Amino acid sequence: MSKLRVNCFSVSLDGFGAGPNQSFDNPLGVGGMALHGWMVKTRTFKSMYGETQGTTGPDDDFTARGFENVGAWILGRNMFGPVRGDWKDESWKGWWGDNPPYHSDVFVLTHHARKPIEMAGGTTFHFVTDGIQSALNKAKASAKGHDVRLGGGANTIRQYLEAGLIDEMHIAVSPCLLGADEHLLGGINLPALGFEQVEYIGTSDAAHYVLRKK
Amino acid sequence: MSKLRVNCFSVSLDGFGAGPNQSFDNPLGVGGMALHGWMVKTRTFKSMYGETQGTTGPDDDFTARGFENVGAWILGRNMFGPVRGDWKDESWKGWWGDNPPYHSDVFVLTHHARKPIEMAGGTTFHFVTDGIQSALNKAKASAKGHDVRLGGGANTIRQYLEAGLIDEMHIAVSPCLLGADEHLLGGINLPALGFEQVEYIGTSDAAHYVLRKK
Repeated sequence: MSKLRVNCFSVSLDGFGAGPNQSFDNPLGVGGMALHGWMVKTRTFKSMYGETQGTTGPDDDFTARGFENVGAWILGRNMFGPVRGDWKDESWKGWWGDNPPYHSDVFVLTHHARKPIEMAGGTTFHFVTDGIQSALNKAKASAKGHDVRLGGGANTIRQYLEAGLIDEMHIAVSPCLLGADEHLLGGINLPALGFEQVEYIGTSDAAHYVLRKK
Repeated sequence: MSKLRVNCFSVSLDGFGAGPNQSFDNPLGVGGMALHGWMVKTRTFKSMYGETQGTTGPDDDFTARGFENVGAWILGRNMFGPVRGDWKDESWKGWWGDNPPYHSDVFVLTHHARKPIEMAGGTTFHFVTDGIQSALNKAKASAKGHDVRLGGGANTIRQYLEAGLIDEMHIAVSPCLLGADEHLLGGINLPALGFEQVEYIGTSDAAHYVLRKK
């Protein structure tokens, strides 16, 4: 059974998935880089950028698990880039350079149509304008029985959660405060949606929680 | 300088400080006991109830720190008991038996006046009907230069936070989901209130965060 999964989604202690005022200079909002301190030092993350060093252990294990059995991705548009409204031109191709770390079809939710962008390494960005269910259908078809990973951001995850479409979530609570912006879980009743907490590991850099639908 | 401190306040991953439907049978609300799994096994906690066993390590250290240099306590009324509205009679004397673990003056916030209750072991419950600042003034006077510990619940902590009166908070995020009831931090901008994250330890039972006013 192909699942819709959230992996390695980091929130601050106060529950935010990014800092305020996202921009080209602050892709994760002001202060948002602190969310990912646990991940950027891992061997798995560094290897994605051609480095051979990096930590091993639970932080690395969670990072690696996030890529296992993933056949397609879904991203909210703000995670794809800082451009808002009309695309204006075709120049923006994501934060990740010519060879993004997805190596699969990536379905970007947007209200503004755009042609697909084929990148190096097997990543193609598709722009979906007819809603979250349509993006999920397309991603599942592309994943051919593998799972679909929902990358974020918080607002996109909330939409899929509220629609009852997410099967499993790994959330990392990082030791930082962000104060404002998109709260991941506020007002969402996870037990009522059928989730239970099935795994917890506290490392020296983050607290990892896995939630799964019963 | 006498500080107002929150220690060992446990929240679920989804941010709740108690489960729904608090009652005599469920003092912490339905499912709320899971919040305190990390604490009830510690040597410090067990010693408060006359037991000599219990775990040591960071969970125990945080439990012990919660009692260091505390000269008085403040509790919200719902933390004192399940009775709502008028006290009706004088029979309810807290959840903790004849010798409560406070051993100091405890100021209980309520809208319903009641005479102080002197318990064994040096604990006296005082009922404060003229607001949170008054309770803090009384507690600081009683603490004679020591700190005042704010026990909870979440709603009471939120009131003191929003009034800018809390100096330091230790929050433990427990691996459980509660879904609804009083959210500790929702809608509160901690950095704007002057807090920074100064300490983090993840143990096998909870993730501990210490926040302090700059």
